[in-house]
Amino acid sequence: MARQARAIQTRESILLAAAAVFDERGYSSATITEILQRAGVTKGALYFHFASKEELALGVVAAQLDVGELPPQRTRLQELVDHGMLFAHQLRHDPLTRAGVGLAMDHRREHGDDPAPFHGTPYQSWIDRIGQVLAEADRHGELLPHVVPDDTAQLLAGAFTGIQGMSQTLCERADLTHRVIVLLQHVLPSIAQPSLLPTLDLGADRAERLLAARVGTAAGTGRAGDGRPAAERPGTERSADLSSGAQRPTGEHGIPSPRRTPTAVR
Amino acid sequence: MARQARAIQTRESILLAAAAVFDERGYSSATITEILQRAGVTKGALYFHFASKEELALGVVAAQLDVGELPPQRTRLQELVDHGMLFAHQLRHDPLTRAGVGLAMDHRREHGDDPAPFHGTPYQSWIDRIGQVLAEADRHGELLPHVVPDDTAQLLAGAFTGIQGMSQTLCERADLTHRVIVLLQHVLPSIAQPSLLPTLDLGADRAERLLAARVGTAAGTGRAGDGRPAAERPGTERSADLSSGAQRPTGEHGIPSPRRTPTAVR
Repeated sequence: MARQARAIQTRESILLAAAAVFDERGYSSATITEILQRAGVTKGALYFHFASKEELALGVVAAQLDVGELPPQRTRLQELVDHGMLFAHQLRHDPLTRAGVGLAMDHRREHGDDPAPFHGTPYQSWIDRIGQVLAEADRHGELLPHVVPDDTAQLLAGAFTGIQGMSQTLCERADLTHRVIVLLQHVLPSIAQPSLLPTLDLGADRAERLLAARVGTAAGTGRAGDGRPAAERPGTERSADLSSGAQRPTGEHGIPSPRRTPTAVR
Repeated sequence: MARQARAIQTRESILLAAAAVFDERGYSSATITEILQRAGVTKGALYFHFASKEELALGVVAAQLDVGELPPQRTRLQELVDHGMLFAHQLRHDPLTRAGVGLAMDHRREHGDDPAPFHGTPYQSWIDRIGQVLAEADRHGELLPHVVPDDTAQLLAGAFTGIQGMSQTLCERADLTHRVIVLLQHVLPSIAQPSLLPTLDLGADRAERLLAARVGTAAGTGRAGDGRPAAERPGTERSADLSSGAQRPTGEHGIPSPRRTPTAVR
């Protein structure tokens, strides 16, 4: 058990080192040697976990998708919101997530006409993840009848990638949470049953509250979003709000149907 | 006059060559020598138009924004749609546009912590352009009262960048027009007065019809979106539709309010 925990830790530190090197140098310029030095592990340890640079890159891409376990919500759409808010939080605080997104966006310049091993992988994994949640939302009657879940999933994956890239360029992602809220405020009214809109919690501190709730309940499920020890994360006292997320008073955080209460979103 | 036309042509071919080289090599690896060879012009001619590689990059960035003159429409929102559709068309057919977008998205890996001269420029120019149209739409009463034009402009600029990057990765932008339509279908109902939605023409061939109309009227205003001679562009016979864009039967192309006619968007 201790051995297994150590192996997990080693794998994690290799992925973190690889993520940092990919983030700085790009995939094709990154070397195994530099990743080894950065991780402080032996060549044997690295090759025990990853057979090649390609596998390392795929490992980084897979790891960035992991936002850890989320408390179940009353609606699938709130879970979709929560995923987006946590992913934005991780992009600001987790180098693994940043590197995964970077690999998704940068491969063409690096490889020219020769597609990278992870060509399209991150996009497709985001589309699949979002598509699953939307399909569930559809089965639960949460979506408007004309919605095509796959179209919406593709849009959200692409739009999210774009706003995070823009936020990175313009202000090092300082405003990413606000941009994600604006995206959701513009898209949710076009896909959600109007009666659900006022129940959705799009508070700017949503990710922090979710992380605090995770600490307050079963710790150790999934990677910590911000890389800090549990005790350092704020807001634990508010974790009780989360199991009944849809019942919380939403106020300015929710998304009222714009046609019924147009001023509440401003 | 002939001299001026020649100068414009020279400037254009230098920009095209620079765009192609930036697109293939990235900004920092591109050399003036390679751009000279590609353009087939003398060093003197290049430096007459552009003082440095930096100015060349800024020229590419500025040129990609230019979708040429658009026929006025009955609503500002149709003009916003038309801009998006033409920009998507240019991304598929115009290397200058592709390179400008590439420079916007790639600079971080190229420059590390040293921001490129064009850092943020393309994003800001898109935001400004879209923001102007939305502010006009607001003055004309076309927007819902809660809309914050700058928020929406930032969202559209970022989301567009993201969906075009995803489309490039997954299928060399073959489905970009569809993705832009999906973006507009999801965002317009959240910002437009519901009564305008059925008047908006989001037909997949909208850009082609706009280009054909341009050929049918005053030619030579702005760069041709697809780089082909006017006579080769299809659809000229349909140019009459455009001056009354908002009156055309929209059918599946328009955006009916999803709550009133939910099946028409599918």
